Amino acid sequence: MTDFESEEYMDFEKLKSKLRHFVRERDWEKYHNPKDLAIAIAVEAGELLELFQWMNENDMGSIKGNENLMERIRSELADVINHCLSMANALDIDLAKIVLAKLKEAEKKYPKKRYKGVWRKPKE
Amino acid sequence: MTDFESEEYMDFEKLKSKLRHFVRERDWEKYHNPKDLAIAIAVEAGELLELFQWMNENDMGSIKGNENLMERIRSELADVINHCLSMANALDIDLAKIVLAKLKEAEKKYPKKRYKGVWRKPKE
Amino acid sequence: MTDFESEEYMDFEKLKSKLRHFVRERDWEKYHNPKDLAIAIAVEAGELLELFQWMNENDMGSIKGNENLMERIRSELADVINHCLSMANALDIDLAKIVLAKLKEAEKKYPKKRYKGVWRKPKE
Amino acid sequence: MTDFESEEYMDFEKLKSKLRHFVRERDWEKYHNPKDLAIAIAVEAGELLELFQWMNENDMGSIKGNENLMERIRSELADVINHCLSMANALDIDLAKIVLAKLKEAEKKYPKKRYKGVWRKPKE
Repeated sequence: MTDFESEEYMDFEKLKSKLRHFVRERDWEKYHNPKDLAIAIAVEAGELLELFQWMNENDMGSIKGNENLMERIRSELADVINHCLSMANALDIDLAKIVLAKLKEAEKKYPKKRYKGVWRKPKE
Repeated sequence: MTDFESEEYMDFEKLKSKLRHFVRERDWEKYHNPKDLAIAIAVEAGELLELFQWMNENDMGSIKGNENLMERIRSELADVINHCLSMANALDIDLAKIVLAKLKEAEKKYPKKRYKGVWRKPKE
Repeated sequence: MTDFESEEYMDFEKLKSKLRHFVRERDWEKYHNPKDLAIAIAVEAGELLELFQWMNENDMGSIKGNENLMERIRSELADVINHCLSMANALDIDLAKIVLAKLKEAEKKYPKKRYKGVWRKPKE
Repeated sequence: MTDFESEEYMDFEKLKSKLRHFVRERDWEKYHNPKDLAIAIAVEAGELLELFQWMNENDMGSIKGNENLMERIRSELADVINHCLSMANALDIDLAKIVLAKLKEAEKKYPKKRYKGVWRKPKE
């Protein structure tokens, strides 16, 4: 599986293409409608959230040192992202573009000076 | 904002770095603990899912042609991914690596021949 | 455990009271802050949703006949409701009242005549 | 609307019956398939969770005194429960029964003595 060897320069488009290949080889496009992918994203987001359930603020510092927990976090986070990539495939969405657009928007919505050190709901 | 101009080669690490910069400039790292980021991912996944609520299978084909809906999908999907990138920043996770690892795992779990054209729960 | 025998007339308040008793006996009120209960509701809602993942419209009719699946649905649905009851306990919310108020609101928002047989987003 | 006047003795079955009536009058049973109701529960659970997003432990004490926030919590919690009631209608589930069964199960799984004052994952 030589195509997995180099993980450098793995941008969204390359990952989407690998995932599309995986789905096509199994003839699974028919399952990959946007509604079911949105369900899949929500289900995996719930599983990711479950890993932090009942934790308190003091527990936050010890997460990175808990390799067993980290392994589960990585696995659930990867599931969320994989389904996001599949949705991008199904709907021809350029992920890098929308992520950057959102960041630009956030820079306008939350000007550095006003929001430095404090988060609050911006006025609508 | 020249650093937004070229969207080529926008791999996860570059996007994570941009996001980290945005968060640091506002001194918001304190809000970016993993539990609150997991909540943010779940909340945005719920908002994404809401866009497909009550749709039926016949509606799937007309999504891509509905630019207004597509705009909202792109926006919510970007929110999900942005919070995933922030979680990766907070916990030093290499996203490309875990996404590829998950894909490798899926290739073993769902061999092409056995799953061609049909999805079912693999035997545990 | 005689207090479980009669399940008649089990209104929200009686169930809330039983649940409050269970929590107090274990000295668990400290865990039952509203934020963590909201997380718990979302996590269980995700587990409930997972049971229907990848099902299509034709599968809907056979759910009730699948006792194994029904058992899991009942279990996850009970988890969702139990955490809702705990939130009502933590925040002194009268569930029957808010459920009826919401229904009244829905009757105004969706007049019978206009919405008969068809659902659409009401004008904001 | 005299049938809303008395809110006493509003058990699950009475609420389910009111909701069933509302749905039937609009001929909406066709939308109330279990998968779409599970989506609705998850979407509303996400909206409920959003109200607590970015709050910290110190914020918990001031929630009950914030009537504006409480109003939104009541509204989202009612939405979650209403969709749970609709799912119970669609699948003929006796909610009081499953909630009590779950509580019984929890009493076994978490014996008072062992779990007094401390929560931990029970051994599987």
